[in-house]
Amino acid sequence: MIPRYARPEMTAIWTPKARYGVWLEIETLAAEAMAELDIIPKEAAIAARERGDFDVDRVDEIEREVKHDVIAFLTSVAEHVGEEARFLHKGMTSSDVLDTCLAVQLKQASDILLGGVDRVLAALEKRAIEHKMTPTIGRSHGIHAEPTTFGLKLAGFHAQMQRNRERLEVAKKEISTCAISGAVGTFANIDPRIEEMVAERLGMVAEPVSTQVIPRDRHAAFFSALGVIASTIENIATEIRHLQRTEVLEAEEFFSAGQKGSSAMPHKRNPVLTENLTGLARLVRSSVVPALENVALWHERDISHSSVERGIGPDATIHLDFALHRLAGVIENLVIYPDNMLANLNRLGGLHNSQRVLLALVEAGTSREDAYRLVQRNAMRVWDNPNRTEGDFMNYLKGDEEVSSKLSDEKIESLFDLGYHFKNVDHVFKRVFGK
Amino acid sequence: MIPRYARPEMTAIWTPKARYGVWLEIETLAAEAMAELDIIPKEAAIAARERGDFDVDRVDEIEREVKHDVIAFLTSVAEHVGEEARFLHKGMTSSDVLDTCLAVQLKQASDILLGGVDRVLAALEKRAIEHKMTPTIGRSHGIHAEPTTFGLKLAGFHAQMQRNRERLEVAKKEISTCAISGAVGTFANIDPRIEEMVAERLGMVAEPVSTQVIPRDRHAAFFSALGVIASTIENIATEIRHLQRTEVLEAEEFFSAGQKGSSAMPHKRNPVLTENLTGLARLVRSSVVPALENVALWHERDISHSSVERGIGPDATIHLDFALHRLAGVIENLVIYPDNMLANLNRLGGLHNSQRVLLALVEAGTSREDAYRLVQRNAMRVWDNPNRTEGDFMNYLKGDEEVSSKLSDEKIESLFDLGYHFKNVDHVFKRVFGK
Amino acid sequence: MIPRYARPEMTAIWTPKARYGVWLEIETLAAEAMAELDIIPKEAAIAARERGDFDVDRVDEIEREVKHDVIAFLTSVAEHVGEEARFLHKGMTSSDVLDTCLAVQLKQASDILLGGVDRVLAALEKRAIEHKMTPTIGRSHGIHAEPTTFGLKLAGFHAQMQRNRERLEVAKKEISTCAISGAVGTFANIDPRIEEMVAERLGMVAEPVSTQVIPRDRHAAFFSALGVIASTIENIATEIRHLQRTEVLEAEEFFSAGQKGSSAMPHKRNPVLTENLTGLARLVRSSVVPALENVALWHERDISHSSVERGIGPDATIHLDFALHRLAGVIENLVIYPDNMLANLNRLGGLHNSQRVLLALVEAGTSREDAYRLVQRNAMRVWDNPNRTEGDFMNYLKGDEEVSSKLSDEKIESLFDLGYHFKNVDHVFKRVFGK
Amino acid sequence: MIPRYARPEMTAIWTPKARYGVWLEIETLAAEAMAELDIIPKEAAIAARERGDFDVDRVDEIEREVKHDVIAFLTSVAEHVGEEARFLHKGMTSSDVLDTCLAVQLKQASDILLGGVDRVLAALEKRAIEHKMTPTIGRSHGIHAEPTTFGLKLAGFHAQMQRNRERLEVAKKEISTCAISGAVGTFANIDPRIEEMVAERLGMVAEPVSTQVIPRDRHAAFFSALGVIASTIENIATEIRHLQRTEVLEAEEFFSAGQKGSSAMPHKRNPVLTENLTGLARLVRSSVVPALENVALWHERDISHSSVERGIGPDATIHLDFALHRLAGVIENLVIYPDNMLANLNRLGGLHNSQRVLLALVEAGTSREDAYRLVQRNAMRVWDNPNRTEGDFMNYLKGDEEVSSKLSDEKIESLFDLGYHFKNVDHVFKRVFGK
Repeated sequence: MIPRYARPEMTAIWTPKARYGVWLEIETLAAEAMAELDIIPKEAAIAARERGDFDVDRVDEIEREVKHDVIAFLTSVAEHVGEEARFLHKGMTSSDVLDTCLAVQLKQASDILLGGVDRVLAALEKRAIEHKMTPTIGRSHGIHAEPTTFGLKLAGFHAQMQRNRERLEVAKKEISTCAISGAVGTFANIDPRIEEMVAERLGMVAEPVSTQVIPRDRHAAFFSALGVIASTIENIATEIRHLQRTEVLEAEEFFSAGQKGSSAMPHKRNPVLTENLTGLARLVRSSVVPALENVALWHERDISHSSVERGIGPDATIHLDFALHRLAGVIENLVIYPDNMLANLNRLGGLHNSQRVLLALVEAGTSREDAYRLVQRNAMRVWDNPNRTEGDFMNYLKGDEEVSSKLSDEKIESLFDLGYHFKNVDHVFKRVFGK
Repeated sequence: MIPRYARPEMTAIWTPKARYGVWLEIETLAAEAMAELDIIPKEAAIAARERGDFDVDRVDEIEREVKHDVIAFLTSVAEHVGEEARFLHKGMTSSDVLDTCLAVQLKQASDILLGGVDRVLAALEKRAIEHKMTPTIGRSHGIHAEPTTFGLKLAGFHAQMQRNRERLEVAKKEISTCAISGAVGTFANIDPRIEEMVAERLGMVAEPVSTQVIPRDRHAAFFSALGVIASTIENIATEIRHLQRTEVLEAEEFFSAGQKGSSAMPHKRNPVLTENLTGLARLVRSSVVPALENVALWHERDISHSSVERGIGPDATIHLDFALHRLAGVIENLVIYPDNMLANLNRLGGLHNSQRVLLALVEAGTSREDAYRLVQRNAMRVWDNPNRTEGDFMNYLKGDEEVSSKLSDEKIESLFDLGYHFKNVDHVFKRVFGK
Repeated sequence: MIPRYARPEMTAIWTPKARYGVWLEIETLAAEAMAELDIIPKEAAIAARERGDFDVDRVDEIEREVKHDVIAFLTSVAEHVGEEARFLHKGMTSSDVLDTCLAVQLKQASDILLGGVDRVLAALEKRAIEHKMTPTIGRSHGIHAEPTTFGLKLAGFHAQMQRNRERLEVAKKEISTCAISGAVGTFANIDPRIEEMVAERLGMVAEPVSTQVIPRDRHAAFFSALGVIASTIENIATEIRHLQRTEVLEAEEFFSAGQKGSSAMPHKRNPVLTENLTGLARLVRSSVVPALENVALWHERDISHSSVERGIGPDATIHLDFALHRLAGVIENLVIYPDNMLANLNRLGGLHNSQRVLLALVEAGTSREDAYRLVQRNAMRVWDNPNRTEGDFMNYLKGDEEVSSKLSDEKIESLFDLGYHFKNVDHVFKRVFGK
Repeated sequence: MIPRYARPEMTAIWTPKARYGVWLEIETLAAEAMAELDIIPKEAAIAARERGDFDVDRVDEIEREVKHDVIAFLTSVAEHVGEEARFLHKGMTSSDVLDTCLAVQLKQASDILLGGVDRVLAALEKRAIEHKMTPTIGRSHGIHAEPTTFGLKLAGFHAQMQRNRERLEVAKKEISTCAISGAVGTFANIDPRIEEMVAERLGMVAEPVSTQVIPRDRHAAFFSALGVIASTIENIATEIRHLQRTEVLEAEEFFSAGQKGSSAMPHKRNPVLTENLTGLARLVRSSVVPALENVALWHERDISHSSVERGIGPDATIHLDFALHRLAGVIENLVIYPDNMLANLNRLGGLHNSQRVLLALVEAGTSREDAYRLVQRNAMRVWDNPNRTEGDFMNYLKGDEEVSSKLSDEKIESLFDLGYHFKNVDHVFKRVFGK
C-alpha cells in the first residue's frame, strides 16, 4: 500500500486494530448466539460484550511465541474478559473468524468505494449538464470524425460509471457472506444456526457451503469488478490527458497558483493527476490475476490465498478509493475551453461533414461508390493543404463539377450547419440522466 | 483457437459465414426499421429481406482491394440484392454493424456456455446426492483435518458453479446491447428509434451512449466472468487430480479399455483430462487482462480492441465451452472409491477427532491451553509412529493419566463415532439443492 | 491464432506436418545415436533415415483410437519404415520427443523473430539517419517541453529494439535444450550420451536435469521476453498514433490511393496499422501469465502446460512475427511532415526555452526560486493568450523589468536559437549507431 | 508491502531516507563532475560533499506546499549546504535524479536478491548431495511412474534456480543504467560527460538514449525476471506441499515444539510455509503485467509509470527477498523421510518397472504393440487389487503364459532391482554440481 495514494477513511478498515475489532465482534456475536441457544452460559456472552477487548501489541507478542494469530488474539481477549473467555470460539475454527472478518472488511470497503463512485457520478453529471451543448469534435482513431458535444462525452463516462456502480453492488453482495462452520465446514462442533444468526446480525448471509474457508470464486469476482472500475478510470483519465495535450488543449486539470509543473521547465502545466490515475489503474488491475489464481485451493482449503489477500485486500481497495476521489476532484475542477474546442473542430476545413455530403449525393441519385469517390477526392485536397481554412471543403465541393451538377451551392452550404449533429443530444441525455 | 479443444456448436458462432450472417440480419433489421419510419422505400427493406445474401470468398476478394471489411461485405450483398441495396446501411457506420454483431455473438456464446454450466451442475448434483453420506476425510493444507462426505465436497462445487451461472447471466445481459448511432454516437444521420427497434428485435437493449463503439467496460466485465468460471473449473479439476494421486486414489477419471496412459509405462492411468482442464483454465483466464486493457480506448474510439477481440472472442468462449463439457463428462463418469476414502480417513489413527477430544476436555473443566497441550501431546505420538493403526489415538488418550483423570474410557470412545460429523449434512444439502 | 495476423513463414513451423517432421528427425537422430553406440542395429537407423515418413491423416486416425499422439505417430512411421521401426523410440518416453520438438520449434520461431527485429532495426536506423536533425518538439506529459529531433526519437526506439534483440537471443538460447532422459529423467532405459548426441546435431544443448519434461522456467522466460518485445512495439505504435492525431499531424501511416478510411466518412485517414499493433501487443503479452503459471508442475511433471502451449506457442510467435513486420512496414513507409513539426514546435510562443531562460537568470545571479518565479510568470502569460504568436515569450521577458534588469535584450534573444538544443545529437547517435 | 513478509535488509532500500540518500549522492556526484569540467565552482562540489544533508520531515513539509518532490528535496538540502547549493542540479531535470535513483535501488535490490538465491542454491546443493541416492518414486500426473532419487529432485530445482541466478544477473545489468540527460534527453543544458562520469562512479553505464526517463523496457524485463524466479519458488513449494500430504508424508516442514498447527485441531502439522510461498509467488508475479503496461509511455515520457513503480518496486523485491529466505529455511530444515519414500515406492506392487518389462519383451522378440498389451494386462490386475503387496506385479507376470513364454522367472526377477534406475545419477549430478 502506497501511503500517498490512500485516504484515511479506507486505510482505517485495514489496520490491525480494525481487524481485531471485527474479530471481537464476530466472536461476541457468536457467543451471544450460543448463549441464546443455551450452548454456553449467558454470563459468558455478557462478559464478552461488556469486557471484550484486546491489545494490539500484546497480540503481536503472543503471536511471535505461538505462531498463530487467532490463538494469540483469543489469549489477549481472555486477559480482558477473564474466566468466561474460555467459552468464546467454542467449536469454531480460526478461519470462521478470519474469513468472515475479510468479508466484513470488503463489505465496508465496498460501501466506501460506492461513495467514491457516487462522487464521480455527481461530478460527471454536473459537468455533463453544464456542457451539454458545447460543440467539440468527435475523434475516431485520433482523427477528426464528426462533431459531438462535450456533455455527450461526459454522459458516456457517466453511463459507464453507473454500470460500475451496479457491478460494485453485485460484488459487495457476492462478498457479504459469513462462515462459521468449523474445521471442514461440516458444523460438526457448532450448530449451523449460530452461523445464520451471526450472518444476520452482520447484515450478511450464511455461506451455503464453506469448507473452513469461504470459496474464493467470490473474491475473484470481487477483485475483477474492481479491475473493471479501474479500467474505466483509466479510460476517463486517458481522455483528459488527450484533451490537455498542447496541440489540443480543450480541457486542463486545475493548476493552482503556487504549483510547479517541472523543476527544470517553469512553463509546464502537466496533466499529472490523470497520468497518475492511469498508473493507479494498472496497480488496481494487478490484483485480478492473483485473485483468480486463488480460487483453486487444495481440498477443503490451503492457505496460499492468505498472503495474496494481505496484499491485494488493502492495496486494491485503498488505491481504487483514492483514485475515485482523485478522479472526482479532477472532473469537478476541470478547466474546460469551449473556444479551443470550436477552433479545433474547424481546423480540418469542414471535413467533419464529409458523411453528410456523401449521403446528400446518394440521395441526389449518385451511387454510393461514386459519391464516396467524389467526397474523398475533395477531402484529400483539404488534407493536403497545410494552410487550409475553415471553409475549404465547402468551397472545393462547390468547385467540383461532378458534385455541383448534383448539389446546388445552397444545398452544399446547408450541409455545414453544426446544429444538425446535436439534434439527438436530448434523447441520449434522457437515456442517461432520465431527463 | 485450438481445434482439439473446441466443440462445433460453439465454433459455428465464430465462422466468417456466421459473422456475415449476423451482419446481414442487422442491416436487414435496420432497413426494415427505416422503411417503417419512411426513411427508405419499403421495397428496399423487402429486397434486403428476400434477396439478401453474400458470398464469403467474394467478400474476402473485395476486402483485399478496398481494405475495409464492411464495405466489402456491402458490395457483395449488393450483388445479390441489386439496385435497392443502396438504401442499406443508410446513415450507419461500420461499427454499428461490427459492434452489434460482436454483442450478438457473445450473447449466443453465453447461451451455449449456460448449457455447459447446466450440464456440469446436473452432473454435480447427481453425484453429490449419490455420495451424500459417503465418508471421506476433509483436508486442510493437504493434511487430514476432520471427516466430511464426498457429497458435501460436490455440493460445495455445485454452489460455486451455481454462482457462476448467475455471473454468466449477468455477463450476458451486460453484453446484450446494440449500437446503431453513427460515426461518433450522435445519431446525426440516423434516427435513434432505428437503434431501439433493431435492439428489440434482436432481444437486446439499445446502448445508452455509444461513441461509434459500444463501451469496452462491458466486454471487460464479460471476459472477467469467463475468467472466474475458468478458475472454478481449475478448482474442481485440481480436487480430482489430488484424489487420483496414487497414494490417495479416492476417485479416478474413467479410463477406457483401449486407452494407453503412457507410451513408455503401460501401467499408467493418468488424470489427463483434469490436467488438461487446469491448462485450459489458464488459457481462458489469459483473456481477462487484454479485455481490461481494451477499455481505455482513445476519444470516441480507436481500433486497438479489435485485434484483441478477434483472438479472445472465439478463443475464450470456445475453450471455456469445451472445458465445461469435458468437466461435465469427467464428473458424470468419475470412478469413486468409497472404500479407499474410508481407509484413508482411518490412516491417521483417529487423529481426525482431536478437536472433539479438545472440546470434551474443556467441557470437563480443563483450560483451553491445557487441553490443547494434552491433545497435541498424544496426537504427536500418533504422528511419530510409522506403524500406527486405526485406534492408536484413542488408546494413547486412554493411557494418558492427565486425560483419563478428566474423561472416562467410555467418554473417550464416544468421541470417535463417525456419524457425529455428518449430522448437519442434510442442513447444507437443503441450502444447496433446496431438498 | 488469427489468420489475418499471420505470415506463412511463421505459421509453417506450427503445422501438424512440420511438427511430425521434427518428431521424425528427433527419432531418427536418436536411432542413429543408438546405432552408433551399438544399442540398436545399424540397419534400423538407416531404415529410419531412408524410409522414415508419416501421414498426417493416418496419425490422426490412429490417435482417435489409441488416444495417444506419439504412439499414433510411431505407428504411422512404422507403416513406412517397416519391421526395423520397432527399434525406434527405444527407452524413450513421449515427452522426450514432444518437449524437444517444442524446443526446436521455439528455436526456429526465434530465428524468424530475429529476422523481424532486424527489419525493424534497419527501418529505424534508416529513418533515424534521414531525420537526424529534423527539429521537433519533445513532449513530457503530452505537453511541449524542449526541442529534440525526430531522428533522436527513432534512435531511442532503435536502442530499445536492439535490447530486445539481445533478449531474444538470450531467450532462444534458454529454450534451445533437448531432453531424451526417459520417463522420469533418470536415463534408466536410455544412455545419456544419446541425449547429448541428438542435442549437438540439433544445435542445442542437453537439458541438465529433465524430469520427463524440460523445466518450464525456460518457457516462462521465453514468453516473458516476447511480452517485453510486444510492449516495445506498443510503445512505438503509440508514438506514431500520437503523431498522426489531427491536431498534431507530424507523421502519418502511408495511405494508399484506393484505400478507404471509413465506410461513412470519406475524409478519414486513420492510423489503423499502429492501432492494430497496439492490440496485437496486448494479445502477445497475454501469453506471459499462463507461461508463468505453467512453471509449477506437479512432481516430475503434469500435463497442464500442454494445452496452454498449444495455444500460446503458435499464437504468441505468429502474432509477434506479424507485428514486427507490420511495424517495419509502417516505419519504412511512414510519411513524415517536418514542416508540421516545426510549426507545432513554435506553437507555444517560444516557451520551450523556459529552462534556458531560468538557467541564464541563475547565472546572472538570481536565486533559483526567484528565477523560477520570473520565468513562470511570463510563461503563464503566454499560456493564457489564445492568440499567441511565435515570439511572445521572448517579448514578455524583454518587457518584464525584473528580467530585463538581469538579462539584456541581446542575451534574451540568444536564448531562443534552436541549434543550441541539438549540439549533442551526434554524441547520442554515436552511442546508438556507432557512427 | 506486507510487513510480515519483509526482511529489514531489503526494506532499508526503500525508505524515504534511503531514497533521499541516493538522490543526494547523485546530485553530489553530478556536482563533482561539473566541478571537474569547470562548469560549476569547485567549492560548490566540496560544499555538497561535506555539508550535503537533508531532513525527511522537512522535505515532506515543503513538498506539501510546492507539490514537487525534487524541488522540495533540493530546498531542504540547500538549508544544509548553504549558498553554494544553487549550483546543484544545474541543467538537470527531476527525472535525472528520480530515474537514476530507481536504477540504483533496483541494482541494490538485485544484489540482496542474489544473496537469497545463493542461500537457496546452497541449501538445495547440501540436501541434494545428502540424498543423492535416497530412492523415491518419480511421479508423472501425480501417478507413480518410475523410481528416481530425492537428490535428483533437488538437483533439478538447483539447476532451475541456477538459471534464475543468471536471469537475475542479466536483469541487474539491464537496470544498471544512469540518465542525466535533461528535460527531453538532448543534453541541451548539460554535458553528456557528466552522465558518463556519474554512471561510472555508481558502477553503472550511461543510458544510450533517455528521454527525460530511462526507457521502461528495462524495468519490464527486470520485473519479468522476478516473476520467473517467483514461479520457480512456487514450483519447489508445490513439490514440498505434495510431499507433506498425509497420505504421502515423504518430507515435512520443520515443526517446532511450541508451535500450534490449528486453533481447533491440535493434531495438525501443516505445510504453511510453502503454502505461504505459493501465495507470495502470485503476489510477486502480479508485478509483471503492470511493468509491461508501463513501457508504452507517451512521447518523451508521461508519469503513469511512477505510481506503478512506487508499488511494485518495493513490493516485488521485498516479497521475493522474503520468499527466497523463507524457502531457503524450509529446505535447510526440511524433515525428510526416506523410509516413507521407500514404502510409497513399493505401494504399487512393483508397477514402476512396467517399462523395463515392456522393453525386455520387445528385446525378446515381441512386437511393441503386443508387449504393451501384455504388460498393461498384468498392470491393470495390480491396480484393481486393493490389497496388493510389493511383489504382485512380478508374480502376475510370472503367471501369465504369454509373458513367461518369452521371459524366464529369473529374467523377470532381474527386472525389479532398484539400482538399475540410479546408474546415471552420477552423470546428472556432474552436470549440475560439476562433481
